[in-house]
Amino acid sequence: MARTGTLIEAVMADIESKIASRAYLPNTRLPSVRAQAKAMQVSVSTVVEAYDRLVAEGSIISRPGAGFYTSGHIAPLDLNQIGPKVAREIDPLWVSKESLEAAPDSLMPGCGWLPSEWLYQTGIKRALRHLARSNSPDLTEYASPKGSLAFRQFLQRRLLGQNIEASSEQIMLTESGTHAIDLIGRFLLSPGDTVLVDDPCYFNFHALLKAHRVNIFGIPYSPNGPDIECFERALSEYQPRLYLTNSGVHNPTGAHLSHSVAHRLLTLAKASELVIVEDDIFADLETTRTPRLAAFDGLDQVIEIGSFSKTVSASVRCGYIAAKQDWIEQLVDLKIATSFSGNRLDSEIVLQTLTDSGYRKHMERLHGWLAKQRISVSKRLVSLGIEPWIQPKDGMFLWCRLPTGTNATQLAQDCLSKGVVLAPGNVFSQSQSAHDYLRFNVAQCTDPKIFETLEWALERQMQEGP
Amino acid sequence: MARTGTLIEAVMADIESKIASRAYLPNTRLPSVRAQAKAMQVSVSTVVEAYDRLVAEGSIISRPGAGFYTSGHIAPLDLNQIGPKVAREIDPLWVSKESLEAAPDSLMPGCGWLPSEWLYQTGIKRALRHLARSNSPDLTEYASPKGSLAFRQFLQRRLLGQNIEASSEQIMLTESGTHAIDLIGRFLLSPGDTVLVDDPCYFNFHALLKAHRVNIFGIPYSPNGPDIECFERALSEYQPRLYLTNSGVHNPTGAHLSHSVAHRLLTLAKASELVIVEDDIFADLETTRTPRLAAFDGLDQVIEIGSFSKTVSASVRCGYIAAKQDWIEQLVDLKIATSFSGNRLDSEIVLQTLTDSGYRKHMERLHGWLAKQRISVSKRLVSLGIEPWIQPKDGMFLWCRLPTGTNATQLAQDCLSKGVVLAPGNVFSQSQSAHDYLRFNVAQCTDPKIFETLEWALERQMQEGP
Repeated sequence: MARTGTLIEAVMADIESKIASRAYLPNTRLPSVRAQAKAMQVSVSTVVEAYDRLVAEGSIISRPGAGFYTSGHIAPLDLNQIGPKVAREIDPLWVSKESLEAAPDSLMPGCGWLPSEWLYQTGIKRALRHLARSNSPDLTEYASPKGSLAFRQFLQRRLLGQNIEASSEQIMLTESGTHAIDLIGRFLLSPGDTVLVDDPCYFNFHALLKAHRVNIFGIPYSPNGPDIECFERALSEYQPRLYLTNSGVHNPTGAHLSHSVAHRLLTLAKASELVIVEDDIFADLETTRTPRLAAFDGLDQVIEIGSFSKTVSASVRCGYIAAKQDWIEQLVDLKIATSFSGNRLDSEIVLQTLTDSGYRKHMERLHGWLAKQRISVSKRLVSLGIEPWIQPKDGMFLWCRLPTGTNATQLAQDCLSKGVVLAPGNVFSQSQSAHDYLRFNVAQCTDPKIFETLEWALERQMQEGP
Repeated sequence: MARTGTLIEAVMADIESKIASRAYLPNTRLPSVRAQAKAMQVSVSTVVEAYDRLVAEGSIISRPGAGFYTSGHIAPLDLNQIGPKVAREIDPLWVSKESLEAAPDSLMPGCGWLPSEWLYQTGIKRALRHLARSNSPDLTEYASPKGSLAFRQFLQRRLLGQNIEASSEQIMLTESGTHAIDLIGRFLLSPGDTVLVDDPCYFNFHALLKAHRVNIFGIPYSPNGPDIECFERALSEYQPRLYLTNSGVHNPTGAHLSHSVAHRLLTLAKASELVIVEDDIFADLETTRTPRLAAFDGLDQVIEIGSFSKTVSASVRCGYIAAKQDWIEQLVDLKIATSFSGNRLDSEIVLQTLTDSGYRKHMERLHGWLAKQRISVSKRLVSLGIEPWIQPKDGMFLWCRLPTGTNATQLAQDCLSKGVVLAPGNVFSQSQSAHDYLRFNVAQCTDPKIFETLEWALERQMQEGP
C-alpha cells in the first residue's frame, strides 16, 4: 500500500501530465474532487490536498463555488513531460538522438538503417549529375500540391504490384514516412483519442503519437501479426480511432502478417470506425510478397504510406500517402497549410534512382547480403545465449531474447560506455514488457568488437546478479 | 435585423465551426442554452431550436439532466470548414493551389516567388555536381537532430550581421519557413489561443493558423510596421500567445519596421507573455539593413525564422529557427517525433550555394533587376489608375490600390479567365478590408499581356458598375 504522500503526488502527477499533454486545455474545469477521488481510487482528502498544492504552485486556479480550473496560459509542449518517466536508454527520443548524433566511429548494432555503403549511392550520384546538367524547374521551383505526377504514376504501378489499386490522384507525396503519419494524425486524431500500435513497434511511433496527445495502446505482436483476440478486446474497450502497423518486414521483429490474421483484422475493423495506417517503408527489402491490408481493403479504411529512407537514401527526403480520394484532397490542404510545398528536387532524385536500370540489380545484391548476414549474426548471437524470436525471411532486423536474468536496458548502458549503441526492447514496447529483448540490425553487425562487447556486458550482469 | 431562421443558423454554424476546428473536442459539454444565448445575444428559444436541430443531425448529443455534448467521434479535420466561407479567389488554400498548379504558360503577377531564371541556378548546379563527385554521408545518411553544424555556424555569422546573437546550439534547421512556424505553433499554441498577424499579411499564415485551431486577430499594418495603438489594445483584450510578422520586406506590402515602432512593440510585449515569431525569408533581398526585433530582444521573447525558398530555390527545402536554448531543445524533440530527421542533402546544397563565390554577385544583380522592375511596373500600374500603397525600397512586391469602385476579387476572376493569376487583397486580410487592393510581384510582370488584361478587366468593371 502506497503512503499518503505518494498518493497525493500521484494525483498531482495525473493532473500535471494532462495539462502538459494538453488533454486539459487552458481554462478547463478539472474533475470535481469527488470525481477525481473515485477515478483514482483515493480518498477525497488526498485529492483536496493535491489540488491545494497545485493551486499553490500556480498550475491550477480555484474559483470558489465553481471548482478548480487550469490556468489561462499553459507551458510550451514538452514531450518529455508526457507519460511516465523512463530510463533514458529506453526513452524513444533519447534513443533517436543517440543514433542520429552517434560519433562516426561508434558501432551501432541497434540502429534502424543500413550503412551508407549498402545503399545505392551510384544511382543517387547519377541522378545528381543528370539534374546538374538540366535546366529543369526541378532545380528551383515549388512542387505541385500532390507532388510530381511522374512519381505518382510510378507509385501507382508499384502499388499495383502489391495488389493495391490507387489512381495517381489518390497519391500524395510527403517529406518522409514519419511526415506522412504525422499529417494523417493531424487529419484524423484529436487529443484524448486512442491509437493502437503493435507491441513491440517502431519506437518513434510512441514519440509521434505523444505529440498528438493521444492515448496509446499496444497490441501484443505474434509471429503472424497482431494478437487478434487482444485486438478485438481493444476495439470494444477503447473505440480506437487509428491502428498503426507494418504488415511486411515488421519493425522490430522482421515478421509479416499472415493471410488469415489480415482477413480477421479487416473483418473486425469493418465493424468499427477504425482507420488503419499501413507503413510500408521496408517494401523493397521483401523478396517475396506478403499480404497487405490495403490490397484486401481497397483503400477504404486502410491508408498506405511509405518512403525510401531505408532503401534509397535517408538524407534525401521523400515519402507518400495513398488513400481514398476525398481524404487525399483534405490532406493536400493540410500539407500546404503546414509546409506550403513538398520537396521537388528530392522526389526527382528518388524517382530517377528507383527507375535507374541498376536499381533492381542493386536490390538483388542487397537481399543476398542481408540473407547472409541474418544467418551469420544469428549464429554469433546464439553462441552468446541471445536467441532470435523468429528467423525473419527478409529485412535487416533480428528481434532477440537475452539469457534469463539479464536486462536489456542495463546491457545498453554498459555497451554504450564502450561505444556500442544497442536498441533495448522496452524502447519498442508500450507495455514495457520487453525488458529482456534487443533489436539487432544485421547490416550494422559486421565488426567483431560488437560481439566481444556484448559478451563482456552479459558476463558482467551474470556476475553481479539481478 | 436578421430573421429568426438566420439566427438559428448562426448558432448552429458557431457550434459546427467549433467542432470542425476542434475547439470543442469529442464528448465536450457545450455551453448551457442560457450561456450560449447570452454569448451570441440571441434568445433562449433560438438556441434551444439550434441545439435540437444539431441533435437531429447527429452533430451533438443531448444527455437529459446533464446538458448537450459533442459526440464521441468527430469528423476528420477539414480546413475548409473552419471559419467563414469566402469566395475561392480569396481563399488562401485555393490561391496557393492555383499558383502551385498553374499551367507553365500562365502569367502569374500575383505569385509570391521569383521566376526560375532570376534564381542562382548556376550555384545550385555547381553544388549538385560537387555532391555527385563526393562520397559524402550527405548523399545517404540521416541528418543530426539540429541539422548540419557547418550550416548552423554559417547562420550564426549571418544572424550576427543583422545584430542577432545566437550560438550554433540555438539554431535548428527545418524543411522550410512554413515548417519552422508550424513547429513553433505545435510547441507554443493550444486550440483556442489567440494569435496576432499583420493585416495584410502573407496569406498562408491564415491557413497555417487554422490548422492550429487558434483565433486569428489582424493588426492593421502601417508603412512603419503594425499599428501600435491597435497592438496595445489587442494585447490587453485577447492576451495573445503569439505575434507572427515580417520585420523587413514585409509580405505583401514591401514595407519595413521603423526603429521607433520596433522599440514600442517590444516594450509592450515585455509586459505580456507574448512570443513574437519574426519571419525573415526575404532577408537576402534587402540592400540596406532595417530593424529586426530579434536584434533588440536578444532572442528572449522573439524567435527568428527564415528560409531560402525565395532567394536560392523553392524546390530545395531548407529553413531554420533561432531561439533560446531550452526552447530549441524541445523543438528538436518535436521535430524528431514528427519528421524524424531533417533534409541533409538539401541543407548541404543550400549551404554550398550560399557560400559559393558567385552568390553575392548574383544577389547584387538581382537587387538591380528588382529595383528597375519596381519602377517600371509602378509606372505601368499608375497609368492604369492602380496606385502603389508605398514605394518599397526592396523586394519583389508592390501592394496596390485599385481605382475607386473596382473590386479585386472580381478582377482576379476576370483575369483568371484570360490565364492571368492575380493575388486579390482580401486573401491577405484577416478583417477582409482589402477588397480594393492587389499584390503584384514585379519580377513576374515582364509580359505586356498582363497590363493589357488588367486594363480590359478594369474597363469591364467600370462599364458594369458596382
